Amino acid sequence: MVLKIGVIGTGAIGQDHIRRITNKLSGGKIVAVTDVNKEQAKAIVETQNLDAKIYDDGHELIKAEEVDAVVVTSWGPTHEEFVLAAIEVGKPVFCEKPLAITAEGCKKIVEAEIATGKSLVQVGYMRRYDTGYRALKNVIESGKIGEPLIVHCAHRNPTVPDTYTGDMAIVDTFIHEIDVLRWLLNDDYVSVQIVAPRKTSNALEHLQDPLIVLLETKQGIRINAEIFVNCQYGYDIQCQVVGETGIANLPEPSSVVLRSEAKLSTEILVDWKDRFIDSYDTELQDWINSTLKGEVNGPTAWDGYVAAVTSDACLEAKESGNIVQISLEKRPEFYNKNLVVVEKI
Amino acid sequence: MVLKIGVIGTGAIGQDHIRRITNKLSGGKIVAVTDVNKEQAKAIVETQNLDAKIYDDGHELIKAEEVDAVVVTSWGPTHEEFVLAAIEVGKPVFCEKPLAITAEGCKKIVEAEIATGKSLVQVGYMRRYDTGYRALKNVIESGKIGEPLIVHCAHRNPTVPDTYTGDMAIVDTFIHEIDVLRWLLNDDYVSVQIVAPRKTSNALEHLQDPLIVLLETKQGIRINAEIFVNCQYGYDIQCQVVGETGIANLPEPSSVVLRSEAKLSTEILVDWKDRFIDSYDTELQDWINSTLKGEVNGPTAWDGYVAAVTSDACLEAKESGNIVQISLEKRPEFYNKNLVVVEKI
Amino acid sequence: MVLKIGVIGTGAIGQDHIRRITNKLSGGKIVAVTDVNKEQAKAIVETQNLDAKIYDDGHELIKAEEVDAVVVTSWGPTHEEFVLAAIEVGKPVFCEKPLAITAEGCKKIVEAEIATGKSLVQVGYMRRYDTGYRALKNVIESGKIGEPLIVHCAHRNPTVPDTYTGDMAIVDTFIHEIDVLRWLLNDDYVSVQIVAPRKTSNALEHLQDPLIVLLETKQGIRINAEIFVNCQYGYDIQCQVVGETGIANLPEPSSVVLRSEAKLSTEILVDWKDRFIDSYDTELQDWINSTLKGEVNGPTAWDGYVAAVTSDACLEAKESGNIVQISLEKRPEFYNKNLVVVEKI
Amino acid sequence: MVLKIGVIGTGAIGQDHIRRITNKLSGGKIVAVTDVNKEQAKAIVETQNLDAKIYDDGHELIKAEEVDAVVVTSWGPTHEEFVLAAIEVGKPVFCEKPLAITAEGCKKIVEAEIATGKSLVQVGYMRRYDTGYRALKNVIESGKIGEPLIVHCAHRNPTVPDTYTGDMAIVDTFIHEIDVLRWLLNDDYVSVQIVAPRKTSNALEHLQDPLIVLLETKQGIRINAEIFVNCQYGYDIQCQVVGETGIANLPEPSSVVLRSEAKLSTEILVDWKDRFIDSYDTELQDWINSTLKGEVNGPTAWDGYVAAVTSDACLEAKESGNIVQISLEKRPEFYNKNLVVVEKI
Ligand SMILES: [Mg+2]
Ligand SMILES: [Mg+2]
Ligand SMILES: [Mg+2]
Ligand SMILES: [Mg+2]
Repeated sequence: MVLKIGVIGTGAIGQDHIRRITNKLSGGKIVAVTDVNKEQAKAIVETQNLDAKIYDDGHELIKAEEVDAVVVTSWGPTHEEFVLAAIEVGKPVFCEKPLAITAEGCKKIVEAEIATGKSLVQVGYMRRYDTGYRALKNVIESGKIGEPLIVHCAHRNPTVPDTYTGDMAIVDTFIHEIDVLRWLLNDDYVSVQIVAPRKTSNALEHLQDPLIVLLETKQGIRINAEIFVNCQYGYDIQCQVVGETGIANLPEPSSVVLRSEAKLSTEILVDWKDRFIDSYDTELQDWINSTLKGEVNGPTAWDGYVAAVTSDACLEAKESGNIVQISLEKRPEFYNKNLVVVEKI
Repeated sequence: MVLKIGVIGTGAIGQDHIRRITNKLSGGKIVAVTDVNKEQAKAIVETQNLDAKIYDDGHELIKAEEVDAVVVTSWGPTHEEFVLAAIEVGKPVFCEKPLAITAEGCKKIVEAEIATGKSLVQVGYMRRYDTGYRALKNVIESGKIGEPLIVHCAHRNPTVPDTYTGDMAIVDTFIHEIDVLRWLLNDDYVSVQIVAPRKTSNALEHLQDPLIVLLETKQGIRINAEIFVNCQYGYDIQCQVVGETGIANLPEPSSVVLRSEAKLSTEILVDWKDRFIDSYDTELQDWINSTLKGEVNGPTAWDGYVAAVTSDACLEAKESGNIVQISLEKRPEFYNKNLVVVEKI
Repeated sequence: MVLKIGVIGTGAIGQDHIRRITNKLSGGKIVAVTDVNKEQAKAIVETQNLDAKIYDDGHELIKAEEVDAVVVTSWGPTHEEFVLAAIEVGKPVFCEKPLAITAEGCKKIVEAEIATGKSLVQVGYMRRYDTGYRALKNVIESGKIGEPLIVHCAHRNPTVPDTYTGDMAIVDTFIHEIDVLRWLLNDDYVSVQIVAPRKTSNALEHLQDPLIVLLETKQGIRINAEIFVNCQYGYDIQCQVVGETGIANLPEPSSVVLRSEAKLSTEILVDWKDRFIDSYDTELQDWINSTLKGEVNGPTAWDGYVAAVTSDACLEAKESGNIVQISLEKRPEFYNKNLVVVEKI
Repeated sequence: MVLKIGVIGTGAIGQDHIRRITNKLSGGKIVAVTDVNKEQAKAIVETQNLDAKIYDDGHELIKAEEVDAVVVTSWGPTHEEFVLAAIEVGKPVFCEKPLAITAEGCKKIVEAEIATGKSLVQVGYMRRYDTGYRALKNVIESGKIGEPLIVHCAHRNPTVPDTYTGDMAIVDTFIHEIDVLRWLLNDDYVSVQIVAPRKTSNALEHLQDPLIVLLETKQGIRINAEIFVNCQYGYDIQCQVVGETGIANLPEPSSVVLRSEAKLSTEILVDWKDRFIDSYDTELQDWINSTLKGEVNGPTAWDGYVAAVTSDACLEAKESGNIVQISLEKRPEFYNKNLVVVEKI
């Protein structure tokens, strides 16, 4: 059984997903593509030798008969309309983050999905598929460290481009922690405070970098998160969970141990793509497999909505310096399924 | 383009390969299976929902029109005849180790393959596809540690079953080091000596365990290899390359770092299957991809032959306690292609 | 040249100092001791075979002609009067923490010392003598990580006795970080906020444990400090300094690396005495050496005063949940000497 | 009680010992010195402000009434005569390695010491006093890794001077492993084989470097030792003990963990003096303490003799390429005392 997939948006991430579905994963086939830049859409069809139709527009693609399921990798502000359109025709949709650029937009998607009575939407928060985070979650759930009390974490990039704005520290960078930490802890956030340390001289003038985000969860867990996007030395994602009886750290990526020039060293990655490349594979394979079974295993529309609400609160906390409350509606019954861990073959 | 694959032998490893080709990898399809135990062959076809014909016999399967390429995962002593049969009909064949149970058998395969003028045979030494060994090879080839002078390595299993014989320490266990180290070093062996340390009390009476194997290469590199198959504590594969200016170690598998009960610890695997599971995926995907292009990227029939000759010398060294010379014929021009590293998608 | 030392207070820490001065260090001799428990004072003189006079009272001991310098290891609330008495007679004094139990008391000592025009007082903050903290300070000052921006640190004890009160988390436990971090960063604190994570079920009912202390320094460095005195797993002191171009961590104590029972592990200490035992030796040796030269290398009375003021602010922040300002007077010129690092012999 | 010490030989190591006894350790006092270079002897007396007499000759110094005990740090070939002279007058003597430059010389010392009936001689193998080796010995003796079966070890120097000869790889470098490993394992050697890997291009022409030494012990433990004195990258002492149920590694020296320039690194020492500097302190303090009690805790004359015999066999094995037997006489009853571990104060 093969899942026939239409891809809306053939930029960098869209092309990556097309390549992995075509050359590396099992059970999916690209049958339709579209992009505002039609030449780009054509190019990927040709270079990957795809047996795929090129559509003028995402809405046509979504309605096309040969399309079983949709991947939305277009420009962020267009996500909402394409996801809603896919829901309308009852087709499963994998949408890269953000699900929508406003919490209201996410809410609309949640309501539309619930109205169909079918699980249709998965959001592309790939960290949940990282073997490191999964191992960490397993350790927490094994009880080896007792109940979690504190999380110390850090999201560090070597540098960011000039186009990186202060808000992107939250909506592009920290958004990954927002999603993965509540999944890791099976919890939600209730408040956030953001403090600004001395600014690094390596950041552009307009950018306060680093930041410290202090999140509080429903269970009272405190999260200390460092965001530092000009740290120079590497792309480094750290996560330490302090439990009642022990402490667990996200694994460092595996690396050759070198003794050289008076140093015992391992490599730190510098490119974020290398860090989660395997997660993207696992994520998409899991999406294909679960979609073929009519299920959604990964981050749901509800998770996309929670990320949006939390991210809005973070932006306010950053602006005001105050402790900002994070109020979520009750999670709809519809989303009360446990995450099914991807089975090993 | 899909590679239509016939599988001879549906025991544990055969079933694993069928499952990964069917559910996890791209570009391959199981179209035919056979096993001396026909019920077992039927069972895998049913449970995996394969669109595959069940053959009475490997030779029939090899000749079957719908079969593009063959995977040999039958009982070791039958490998030689099936590989030769595949070569005879000019079909690519992936053969689990050993290629043949004698050096002479391997030699016959080498000659048959050369006679066809086509690269057809890949042997299932999966360690070459391990990301750790690949990273180690990259470090060596980068010049970061200078020319290799010494290798310290260890192959440790927690325990072995009662059926494990003294020779299996070489032909089942150490055979992986034999293949991967000459690939790692771009070198061949010229002599071997084996010494027996004090025997562990945890080994069965008939078994000398551990062993130390001392290999010398053409370039004069000295390899100290520990084989310890009752080490109790885990499945642990170590490899340290001492170069002129630095030293590089095979990465430890990535693991959560735990602070608990007065210990700072990471996990050591206990099951060998967990250690190289990803290598099997990469190996088979690479075999499918290169076979579709008419190439062999992985270990060749020649590599299978060298492993057999080296393994015979190790057995003699183990028996005699002497330094045993390892004489290889000159590598045929046919096999002088470089290993092409699997591209990242 | 030998420094003739009188010790006031022969409890556990007093006895330790007597033993190290007598049996392990060079240049010091215990010539006088006193304690409210005279039997205890006698006992240490006898068991250590000291050639030392036993005094009825600290003030007599301070005035005794044969006493060159005084070590104050009596009950905390008595420190102030003994240190003042030593200053009055112009004798160097090493006082275990706290210098006085109020900031006012410390201030009085500072003023008395300045009035004499001689450096006389060293306070027993031994972490500055730890080889780990010294190595960390060297790395910071080498410029290898650029200017410090953030410090993540943790002070974890396995358990605390029933007598441990909420305030002790600051005045007994965190006081060490208060002293060592401003020394490490060459900085002072301007504000503090304390937040309370979910309480561990392993703490006594009256005790909020863990705590997170957020300190801000004059230079704008932000310190995230975890205090967790019932962490169960060990005595664990962590300190990570995030700089503009790199990050440096306090070394883990050196330990045998063990592969055993499916774990790769090193030991975590459980007894705080083991962690800083060498620091006490170095501290006292440095005090003897510098005292013989008429200098004070270690923490001064001013450092004792700053610790007291900061600790008061922490207590208020803990009580109120507010951000509390920390106001220090300008450091007197008298104390503007750099810390002289203990020379290696 | 103070041990009055005479030092024969005021070269680098002699001066170091004088400084540590004078400024850092407890219970010893330098009262006499001598050196073939009298100006050098004078210089150290002056710069260290010693209350010490300068003798024309080691024999005079040994006999001097004010000298309780002797430290021999003169040129190696003179050690034997001075140690014998000290034994003759019944004075305890600490002799830097080698005890004598021939096994026969060592034997003579052993016999002379036994004849006095008093333990008088300690040899300066300081590694037994290293906290790392002690921790490793504790782990072995705790039973945590079961009975030792194999030792993998390495002695690596960044470079050696032009004056370094092939034999020095054994008598100056590997001699430390020879002593410390038999102490670690409570065992003696029975045979040795030495193999020569490809020579590093960084060694001087006359020098075969690296070497691999294969030692066999009475208990059947096999030791694989790498000697590599031009390894470029650092001074690196490795020791891994493979036991029946687990494996223990000598701790790496404690170091700041740095994240910088895409590397997670710790420092490797480059100067051998830094590696064992604390061991020298502990060694000498223990010698002072035990000498004051009339005991010898450290390496004995017998240990010096065994080192000499083993070292001779290594030289023969290196020359011949053969497996060379190591025959020791039975250990005299006189030396059957257990090593008393230095107590913590
Ligand atoms: Mg994503
Ligand atoms: Mg294989
Ligand atoms: Mg103290
Ligand atoms: Mg020595």
